[in-house]
Amino acid sequence: MLKYQQIAEEIEKYIEENELQQGEKLPVLDTLMSQFDASKSTVTKSLDLLEKKGVVFQVRGSGIFVRRHKRKGYISLLSNQGFKKDLEESHLTSDVIELKVRKPTAEAARNLNLELADDVYYVKRVRYINGQTLCLEESFFNKSIVTYLNKEIVSESIFNYIREGLGLKIGFSDMYLHVGMLTAMEADYLGMEEGAPKLDVETVFHLTNGQPFDFSIVTYNYEQSQFFLQANSQLL
Amino acid sequence: MLKYQQIAEEIEKYIEENELQQGEKLPVLDTLMSQFDASKSTVTKSLDLLEKKGVVFQVRGSGIFVRRHKRKGYISLLSNQGFKKDLEESHLTSDVIELKVRKPTAEAARNLNLELADDVYYVKRVRYINGQTLCLEESFFNKSIVTYLNKEIVSESIFNYIREGLGLKIGFSDMYLHVGMLTAMEADYLGMEEGAPKLDVETVFHLTNGQPFDFSIVTYNYEQSQFFLQANSQLL
Repeated sequence: MLKYQQIAEEIEKYIEENELQQGEKLPVLDTLMSQFDASKSTVTKSLDLLEKKGVVFQVRGSGIFVRRHKRKGYISLLSNQGFKKDLEESHLTSDVIELKVRKPTAEAARNLNLELADDVYYVKRVRYINGQTLCLEESFFNKSIVTYLNKEIVSESIFNYIREGLGLKIGFSDMYLHVGMLTAMEADYLGMEEGAPKLDVETVFHLTNGQPFDFSIVTYNYEQSQFFLQANSQLL
Repeated sequence: MLKYQQIAEEIEKYIEENELQQGEKLPVLDTLMSQFDASKSTVTKSLDLLEKKGVVFQVRGSGIFVRRHKRKGYISLLSNQGFKKDLEESHLTSDVIELKVRKPTAEAARNLNLELADDVYYVKRVRYINGQTLCLEESFFNKSIVTYLNKEIVSESIFNYIREGLGLKIGFSDMYLHVGMLTAMEADYLGMEEGAPKLDVETVFHLTNGQPFDFSIVTYNYEQSQFFLQANSQLL
C-alpha cells in the first residue's frame, strides 16, 4: 500500500470510529500534512481517493467535509467489499452448489471475449444473510486468468483470493440491472415463490489492463435486499 | 467550461463519432498535448475526468484505452443526463400530474434536513419512453434553494433549469434502491397490474457545498427499464 492510500485509510477509520456525521468538517490541509508527516501532494492524493470513494466531499475555498449516508443495512452496489463492509453487523454465509471447469455459455463467452471452446471456472452459490437467502450467484471466470479455484476458496471471498492468492490487479467493472420475476428454479434456491419480484445484476469484471476475467449473474431475493449507490458531481 | 473540460468533451465526442470500441488505444499524451495545444497537466486532468466518467481507462506504462459497453437501451443509474444521453434514440416525454408548494412529508424533511413547517416544491410526473410508461416520479425541492418552478419548467429538464436558470452547482447524490411490488395507485399511473415487480429509486441530491436540495422517489415500470452502472477500481 502506498503512503497516500495508508493516509486515506487512516482518515476513513478516524471518521468511522468517531462516528462523524455528514457535513462535519475535517481538519485543514496543513493540519493533515503535519499530522501524517506528509507532503501537500500526498495528502491531496489521499483526499481525492476518499472523494472518489464517497467518504468525503471537498468544497473549494471552504474545506473537506464528511460524506456519509444515514441508512443501515444497505448493500453497496459499486463495491465488492460491499457485502462485507456494509453488512458487517450481519452474518453472511455461502452454500457452494457447483464448482467445475466447463465451456462458457454464449452469453458468458461474449462478455468475457472468449471462444466457445475456451475453458472457464463455473461457480454457483447461494448466499445467506442472517440465515436467510440473499442471492443466487453464477460466475464464469476466464480460466486462462483465474487459473485455479477450489471449494474452500469459493466458500469464502473469491476476490480476496484473486488479489492475494493469484496476485491479479482488479480494475473496473460494468454492471447491468434488470427487474423481473423469479423462475421456478431461482425461487427454489431462494426459498421464494415462483413469480416473486427479483433483481438481476450482471457484472463484467476487468483487470486493470482492461481484460475481462469474471462474468457474474446475481439474482437477489427482493425481501432481503436494499441497495445503496453514490454519484459524484462529474457524473451529474 | 474550463479548458480541460473542453478537451475532455472533444475526446469523448471523437470516441463516439468514430465508434471506437472498448480496448482501442487513444493517442499518447504527447500527441494529445500538441493536438489540443495544451500542457501536460491540462491533458492529464482531462483524462482523469474521462476516467472518472467511465469513458476511458488508463494502464500505467501502457496507455489510454476506450472504455465502452456493448449494450443498447440501458439507463445510466449514476447520471441525470442518463435519460437523455443513453436513450437519445428514444423519444422521452413527461406528464405533469401535480406541481405545488407544500409542507414536506416526514421522510422528505429528514432527507432534506428540513423542518416539517418548511416549504418545498412538490412535483409529480409520469415519464414516457416511446409512448410507454417508464416511471412515476415524485420530487421534493427545498424551496429556499429551488426558489421557483412552473409547469413549463417541470415538463422539461428540471436539472438543466436549476443549473442554468438558477445558477446552482449540483454536487453529489446518494441513491437507495428497493425492489418491490406496485401498489394499486402506482400500477394505475404506469398502466400495469397491481403487484407487478417494480424498482424504487430514492435519491438525495446535494449542491457542491453539501446541502441537500432535492429528494426524489422514482418508481420504474420494470418492463421498460434496464439499468447500467460502472464501477472504478478504487471501489473494488
